[in-house]
Amino acid sequence: MTTKTHIPSLTRTELWRELAQQLRVDSIRATAVSGSGHPTSSMSAADLIAVLAEKYLRYDFEYPDHPNNDHLIFSKGHASPLLYALYAAGGAISEEELLSLRRFGSRLEGHPSPALPWVDVATGSLGFGLPVGVGVALAAKTVDPRPYRVWVLLGDSEMAEGSVWEAFEHASHWQLDNLTVVLDVNRLGQSGETMHGWNAISYADRARSFGWEAFVIDGHDVDAIDAAYAEATATNGRPTVVVARTKKGKGVAAVENKPGWHGKVLDDPEAAIAELGGQRAIRIEIAPPPDDPPPRGYAVEEPALPAYEVGTKTATRRAYGEALAALGDTRKDVVAMDGEVSNSTFSGLFADAHPDRFFEMFVAEQQMIAAAVGFDVRGLKPFASAFAAFFSPTYDFIRMAAISRASLRVAGSHAGVATGEDGPSQMALEDIAMFRAVHGSTVLYPSDANQTAKLVALAADNPGITYLRATRADTRVIYPPHAPFRIGGSWLLRATPRDRVTIAAAGITVHEAIEAARRLAVEGIGVRILDVYSIKPIDRAALLASVRATNGRLVTVEDHWPEGGLGDAVLAALADSGLPLHAVNLAVRDIPGSGQPAELLHAARIDADAIVSAVHSLLAAEPARKAA
Amino acid sequence: MTTKTHIPSLTRTELWRELAQQLRVDSIRATAVSGSGHPTSSMSAADLIAVLAEKYLRYDFEYPDHPNNDHLIFSKGHASPLLYALYAAGGAISEEELLSLRRFGSRLEGHPSPALPWVDVATGSLGFGLPVGVGVALAAKTVDPRPYRVWVLLGDSEMAEGSVWEAFEHASHWQLDNLTVVLDVNRLGQSGETMHGWNAISYADRARSFGWEAFVIDGHDVDAIDAAYAEATATNGRPTVVVARTKKGKGVAAVENKPGWHGKVLDDPEAAIAELGGQRAIRIEIAPPPDDPPPRGYAVEEPALPAYEVGTKTATRRAYGEALAALGDTRKDVVAMDGEVSNSTFSGLFADAHPDRFFEMFVAEQQMIAAAVGFDVRGLKPFASAFAAFFSPTYDFIRMAAISRASLRVAGSHAGVATGEDGPSQMALEDIAMFRAVHGSTVLYPSDANQTAKLVALAADNPGITYLRATRADTRVIYPPHAPFRIGGSWLLRATPRDRVTIAAAGITVHEAIEAARRLAVEGIGVRILDVYSIKPIDRAALLASVRATNGRLVTVEDHWPEGGLGDAVLAALADSGLPLHAVNLAVRDIPGSGQPAELLHAARIDADAIVSAVHSLLAAEPARKAA
Repeated sequence: MTTKTHIPSLTRTELWRELAQQLRVDSIRATAVSGSGHPTSSMSAADLIAVLAEKYLRYDFEYPDHPNNDHLIFSKGHASPLLYALYAAGGAISEEELLSLRRFGSRLEGHPSPALPWVDVATGSLGFGLPVGVGVALAAKTVDPRPYRVWVLLGDSEMAEGSVWEAFEHASHWQLDNLTVVLDVNRLGQSGETMHGWNAISYADRARSFGWEAFVIDGHDVDAIDAAYAEATATNGRPTVVVARTKKGKGVAAVENKPGWHGKVLDDPEAAIAELGGQRAIRIEIAPPPDDPPPRGYAVEEPALPAYEVGTKTATRRAYGEALAALGDTRKDVVAMDGEVSNSTFSGLFADAHPDRFFEMFVAEQQMIAAAVGFDVRGLKPFASAFAAFFSPTYDFIRMAAISRASLRVAGSHAGVATGEDGPSQMALEDIAMFRAVHGSTVLYPSDANQTAKLVALAADNPGITYLRATRADTRVIYPPHAPFRIGGSWLLRATPRDRVTIAAAGITVHEAIEAARRLAVEGIGVRILDVYSIKPIDRAALLASVRATNGRLVTVEDHWPEGGLGDAVLAALADSGLPLHAVNLAVRDIPGSGQPAELLHAARIDADAIVSAVHSLLAAEPARKAA
Repeated sequence: MTTKTHIPSLTRTELWRELAQQLRVDSIRATAVSGSGHPTSSMSAADLIAVLAEKYLRYDFEYPDHPNNDHLIFSKGHASPLLYALYAAGGAISEEELLSLRRFGSRLEGHPSPALPWVDVATGSLGFGLPVGVGVALAAKTVDPRPYRVWVLLGDSEMAEGSVWEAFEHASHWQLDNLTVVLDVNRLGQSGETMHGWNAISYADRARSFGWEAFVIDGHDVDAIDAAYAEATATNGRPTVVVARTKKGKGVAAVENKPGWHGKVLDDPEAAIAELGGQRAIRIEIAPPPDDPPPRGYAVEEPALPAYEVGTKTATRRAYGEALAALGDTRKDVVAMDGEVSNSTFSGLFADAHPDRFFEMFVAEQQMIAAAVGFDVRGLKPFASAFAAFFSPTYDFIRMAAISRASLRVAGSHAGVATGEDGPSQMALEDIAMFRAVHGSTVLYPSDANQTAKLVALAADNPGITYLRATRADTRVIYPPHAPFRIGGSWLLRATPRDRVTIAAAGITVHEAIEAARRLAVEGIGVRILDVYSIKPIDRAALLASVRATNGRLVTVEDHWPEGGLGDAVLAALADSGLPLHAVNLAVRDIPGSGQPAELLHAARIDADAIVSAVHSLLAAEPARKAA
């Protein structure tokens, strides 16, 4: 590896020390200008990052998509000034940009984000960066073998997050010796001392018990850091962690190892810079990654999707698995993972067909989503599945994935009370709300197997977080194979010129709506049924047309809590319609118990009976309204 | 301890074996009748539970609220048949009720829930029961010293959940020697073998590295179980785990230790029962808890809330801390906890005033919520605080807390883009959607300090999950102290008979709405401002009256994604109004960066400028509409 610097007379040890001081000084300078930020959290890790960047990191700033670039993830994202100072030392950003930290419009946000091309994922929510790093490292060990190393800077406060231990478990399970964690044990959290203080051994013990190689060092001794990195990079068969005892605010007596200085700008930056030996102008040339293996492309061929005969019964969760397996036949970039329920979500069918691209993530749903993000970082098309309810622990990771501009697909089976006997802990009743309230997300809820298959195929290239909600029970196939469904579309299942009420339904309730319409037709009452299979984006034009045709009379019906789901989405689409709305939202309003799906749909008043009643009520109110 | 049984001639060892067989048989019988459920997961732990119940558990079924009762939490909730079989053996439920498992209307749900008086919390989402157990144990070690022990049955699959490690960390940190985990290492998860299979040592090593005492045993050797429990209950200063190597489906050759039998009813229950030695009718009398200390009551006195002068500036997060500290003065049942940001959320003020009732939960937000649930189980009034964004990892626990019928209060500071320079990872923009979509929840978003103080006091006795959203920035005090705010209320801040548009706002956007109204007034355009500080339940009557008065013209404005927040809540309240709606929802539509709050509010188009524009647009469209 070659290294260039403007002070060639220094020994390498001296260079590292000087570089570390520069990183400290630049962290102070940038935060002094911004008036906020985390200089002290940057200063503790400066030596660790200096040695890493100057000797070990292999990265081409001019080619951030180089498939063999190392990945440097600041899981302790609040140390962003240190990262940006490194970018400046590496020549990736200018002095001027360095001092734009936290300014409106700057790429140098308070916490790293992919606004910068060298940042894989947004961090700043502790416990997210390491699990993503596990995903990036896993990709290189499996579907797309690459020589890169994943370096994750972790804070000691962060070790309290459970997600970190999911990552520790998975990293050793997958034998990720291409992953090295640099743990900055600076003892001080935001509001006080961490649980373990400077007891670096306690972290090392935990890491070793989880199957990692651990090296405990003084994190300000650059030669010790060098030795630890050398050992880490030479370790085979297991991930490595360098547990580095450091001082927060290292080098500046006014703040060094003192509580109360988290996320605060130094009182006297000039004096601090002088204490650190003044400004420096060291430029390092970070070693480039190897050229081989070359970039890889993936052919995109149309899959031969499964087709289901109208009138037969198939669970949409099964159609998910069958479509995914078919997608995997023609798309080598498609990877799938599951949270230890692949026999229920039917992702097991993909596993059977493409075992080398299926990942069992066990009951570690946060790590599953993070692994999906990591695969996305590497240009793959991840699909992650579990019971829909079991994605609720991943909401922070979904949120951070969206901020990271990641694209991934999440399939949740066993939605709603239609899940049946297992009871409420297994019934997602908030998942639509959860996934709608994610920037740039797509929320799909198919009602039959053919619709599911088509949406699975469309999801593969859909940007952002795509959520597909599936039902446990076998439901009737109502659409012909290869019907032209689309993201953002809907399907008008039933309409006549004399319809009096629009019923907007999705998934399981589409079937209830069909039955309700049948019964109402017997009474001579015509209703339209709109299958709103794309809940976000929603088909506003079709909704408007339908609800206008029925004079503002609308029943929405959903197997979900009343808040944030289909009903809310439909009303939001009609908000500026100027239509006099007479809308009823049928949704689950009491905590369900166990029972058969039909019993529970009935008890929740989201079945055909309830829809018929709601239509009757709307029409009964009509004469009164007209008279009023 | 006394023990009665119908077969007094047995030795105790023989009794345990017989009782375990009965628990297996009854698990099979119940699931055979229900046609679904988890008999094999129950059978693996039957010996463990038999010895526990007959010799160690101290519990009065007739007095489930006995403050000194032990707590038995089935964190592996799918083993519910075993729990119910134990209830039958203990005489708590009848034979007939046992066979009602999973039937519609039965208290014996697929996973345990507080529909049964002896169940502290609903389980069935893996990784939830243990952290709650930590909270229950913590209460007895701190605010309300009690001699009870918390027993948690944990599954081995569950050990992959990060939340379990948050619990392991906290249990040893708090030296909870009144907590014993029984880890059922039956090797088989739902879809395959766990990561560690029967490697019980790997679990014990991990537990020990986290500061626990661990005992590795054969989980079918009742004398070994007895010995381990004896050691566990005699251990001081640290929590204990009995790592028990077991066989799933133990005792029935057709299923014992065989994959593919998770959550499945046995093919031939009769044969299985015969193989286990047939039905038994053993009744055990579980030892009662000690009488002392007696039940404790808490006086409920009105707090002397802080008062803020109108026109001064105070952040609502600071008012939260000050009100909470005041509440703690008069309410000894109020406890508070924070996720290592108490200096930002101002819960630190409570910590200063009531250090014995404040709990630093470090950066372990799931454990924080679970501890709050545990305190609620013990009749306390927990308040948990952190940055609002950092509750997103807790969504599963919030969901399960609601299913558990728990009451707790969650305060999230730093909501929305108004957070400023820290950037999007620190800005909750989905928290309203998340907390609205929780059964029985309350969502409050105060705009000033006096309103905050009043709502904090009201939250103390509010049932269910109460979420209070707070703002980072200092905002103007606009209400007099002690104004009569209420849960479910709103405040009409401005109204004249000639108002043309209603502006519904909450929190930070109330201040933007006031400024917009001022500017519009200069133009001669009157607008109403409704401060919707109670987003759920929402003040439907006030909204209807306002929007009717402005002929359906409405601007909602929120520092939140457009989905699931204030805008959706307002529209849902107006859904059946029959009003011709012309509603605009101003919300955050692009991922924000860093910047000053005012810059970000402006860029997101949720500031006064945007409100003025929206009002102009609504009014400009009016003549066109009238002409149409």
